[in-house]
Amino acid sequence: MGKYHGQANSVLRPRTTEQVSEIVKYCAHRRIGIVPQGGNTGLVGGSISLQKEIVLSLGAMNNVRSFDPVSGILVADAGCILQSLSDYIAPHNHIMPLDLGAKGSCQIGGNISTNAGGLRLLRYGSLHGTVLGLEVVLPDGTILDQLSTLRKDNTGYDLKQLFIGGEGTLGIVTGVSILTPPAPQATNNIFLALPRFDNVLPLFQIVKRQLGEIMSAFEYIDRTAYDMGLTHGLGPLLDAEEVGDSECFILVETSGGNNEHDLEKLNHLLEHLLTADQPLINTGTLSQSPSQFNAIWAMREGLTECCQKEGKPYKYDVSVPLADFQKVVDAVRERMISKGLYGDHAISKVMGYGHVGDGNLHLNVIAKHGYRPELEAALEPFIYEVVASRKGSVSAEHGIGSMKTHALHYSKSDVSIEWMRKVKQVFDPLNIMNPGKVLP
Amino acid sequence: MGKYHGQANSVLRPRTTEQVSEIVKYCAHRRIGIVPQGGNTGLVGGSISLQKEIVLSLGAMNNVRSFDPVSGILVADAGCILQSLSDYIAPHNHIMPLDLGAKGSCQIGGNISTNAGGLRLLRYGSLHGTVLGLEVVLPDGTILDQLSTLRKDNTGYDLKQLFIGGEGTLGIVTGVSILTPPAPQATNNIFLALPRFDNVLPLFQIVKRQLGEIMSAFEYIDRTAYDMGLTHGLGPLLDAEEVGDSECFILVETSGGNNEHDLEKLNHLLEHLLTADQPLINTGTLSQSPSQFNAIWAMREGLTECCQKEGKPYKYDVSVPLADFQKVVDAVRERMISKGLYGDHAISKVMGYGHVGDGNLHLNVIAKHGYRPELEAALEPFIYEVVASRKGSVSAEHGIGSMKTHALHYSKSDVSIEWMRKVKQVFDPLNIMNPGKVLP
Repeated sequence: MGKYHGQANSVLRPRTTEQVSEIVKYCAHRRIGIVPQGGNTGLVGGSISLQKEIVLSLGAMNNVRSFDPVSGILVADAGCILQSLSDYIAPHNHIMPLDLGAKGSCQIGGNISTNAGGLRLLRYGSLHGTVLGLEVVLPDGTILDQLSTLRKDNTGYDLKQLFIGGEGTLGIVTGVSILTPPAPQATNNIFLALPRFDNVLPLFQIVKRQLGEIMSAFEYIDRTAYDMGLTHGLGPLLDAEEVGDSECFILVETSGGNNEHDLEKLNHLLEHLLTADQPLINTGTLSQSPSQFNAIWAMREGLTECCQKEGKPYKYDVSVPLADFQKVVDAVRERMISKGLYGDHAISKVMGYGHVGDGNLHLNVIAKHGYRPELEAALEPFIYEVVASRKGSVSAEHGIGSMKTHALHYSKSDVSIEWMRKVKQVFDPLNIMNPGKVLP
Repeated sequence: MGKYHGQANSVLRPRTTEQVSEIVKYCAHRRIGIVPQGGNTGLVGGSISLQKEIVLSLGAMNNVRSFDPVSGILVADAGCILQSLSDYIAPHNHIMPLDLGAKGSCQIGGNISTNAGGLRLLRYGSLHGTVLGLEVVLPDGTILDQLSTLRKDNTGYDLKQLFIGGEGTLGIVTGVSILTPPAPQATNNIFLALPRFDNVLPLFQIVKRQLGEIMSAFEYIDRTAYDMGLTHGLGPLLDAEEVGDSECFILVETSGGNNEHDLEKLNHLLEHLLTADQPLINTGTLSQSPSQFNAIWAMREGLTECCQKEGKPYKYDVSVPLADFQKVVDAVRERMISKGLYGDHAISKVMGYGHVGDGNLHLNVIAKHGYRPELEAALEPFIYEVVASRKGSVSAEHGIGSMKTHALHYSKSDVSIEWMRKVKQVFDPLNIMNPGKVLP
């Protein structure tokens, strides 16, 4: 988004964990700040050198260390690119437990340091469950080797968990052991138009019940976002007349072991939805080919790019209770209207889409003619307060980085932040490891 | 097993988190040790008062705080019994993500503090993934409220993870927020006899591929354990002639959304296995009724009780690579033979069973006439060394407690243990919280 410009004048690209350790020892001795950097694809300024700290890039550590096709356990250097790992295990019919838009350049070490979520979380759970072990260089240069390849190991505190989502402030992840699931044999999707937002939750319950273990995504797109997609050449996936004045849309994906069984379940679901006495949907479509499958996903995945084309987007990645999804979007739009900032002269669009299944809403606010201080002042802290009032999270999956340290307190109590500080102090008493990130 | 006798002369049963906090503040002020106790069902002496510390029982804190049937998120007091929670959510068609033999008396707070594994881990993952939030009273009496009901929340360090498997040494879990999965609509199981142990891994791969997302258990029973089961009235599940000299047995369970689809997959799998050119199995059976389903599970679940009837069992709960499962059992048996300790006069049986799918082996060594120091000396540290040489875990799911503090170093490096100590020192500088547990 062009918001950050790194200040580093040195970038180091070590090739081994021992080299990382040597660099860190050197820096610790001289009190030199270090910014660990993976693929540099984060959205919250977490891998930016703010004060001329050196950048330690993991990109040259990109070897797979081992893969066991029986257990599905992969051990790899932190600098391996997510897509490369997917390609590596694909011939063994395994997939990575996470998938995200940046997969072509983000690195697994960065994914873990930021606790990346993405499109598969609903099905395969978070990295706190799928990461089995880590190798970490601590801020004093010590190598903490907890690169276990065991699914179960209850021997003492699970320290590696602190580095998952630690955003490189407690140490540098150099190696990763991760459980990869078997590749599904079949994937399918459906796209549904809903007359009202209130139908989303009843629909979610029915879909969960009927599709059960094969449901792998349940994505939400509001009407504003859908219409924007159409304008920019996405879709149309549905007949405009049948869509009518639908308020929102749902994409459901299945990943299963038997295509025939999965299609039977999906057809049964669609039939049930379309023939109900009081239908929850106006219309819907089931992909009949790989190209239709991709077209349906393109509508959801293309929205980010469309936002960029519309103007400068303020992007908020929040978690709120499912029932409050659209209320948050509406509250923001109304706020801008009440401030006289809604329209082509200022904020041209306020829209929501995201992972309903995870409670994760991507709220996009389009500044048609670019970012302006008075727009930001109208949006923040208002949005954070709305999210906090609903016990939500001000950062569902993007992290805190340097962008949101001031907003941490909206989602974490003073006691929690105080104990985070104590943990930081134990691991990094000199405050050389990614300074200025996470903690305010 | 009659190994531990608590020394406490006081048991406190607070009813609220605030009362827990008051108790802890009082104890901290006077340097009185506290042993948090849930259902007291652990196997490693983790909830035992060793030095007259007071016992703080969570049993009177047993209210469900909330349940959201749409998201499946349950918030409950730590003292709720696992089975009670299962019963509470059953009418909403949800199940707890963990299940274990002690479910009728173990408490959810204890489950979390010991990072309990159990029978559903293969399917629903570990508590590090399913626990969304915790409320914890820290060793200074502070209430750390991280009782989030969000699936995704990347705002700072995930401190709650330290208390999952912390065995009550870093604080007292008083409240729990946990994600519960939808109940499967159908469950089925098969029981297979394998000519050789070497067939287990190829079989595991085929079953994973063919059953995919509906596989919910893959359990191993060696021949010694199976024969013991028969002697004590379990089974027979298979025709003795067809079993022949099978070396081991596998129980596969499926949990799916459509009984017809699931049975079709299972029948196809069995047919494939029985008609292969070089069959991996000698024989197998698919349960045809709820009572057959239960009988198959009874063979696996009844083994623990059979061991008790055979004598005094030395029980080891280890993780080793799947390929080494039976080698560990054989190594122990040979060790006892070579020491002249194998036979009805000393160790009458050495057997293995457990969760192949998780790499978790339950190794049982039967001392026919009771525990004796020379038997233990022959077994330990030998078993720990064998496990460590295969990079295994000396405690897969039972924890360290007070029983295995001396063995922690077989599974964790000196660096790891040193950093565990530092974390303990930050949270509990007075060492009043479950002293003598976890760390040696």
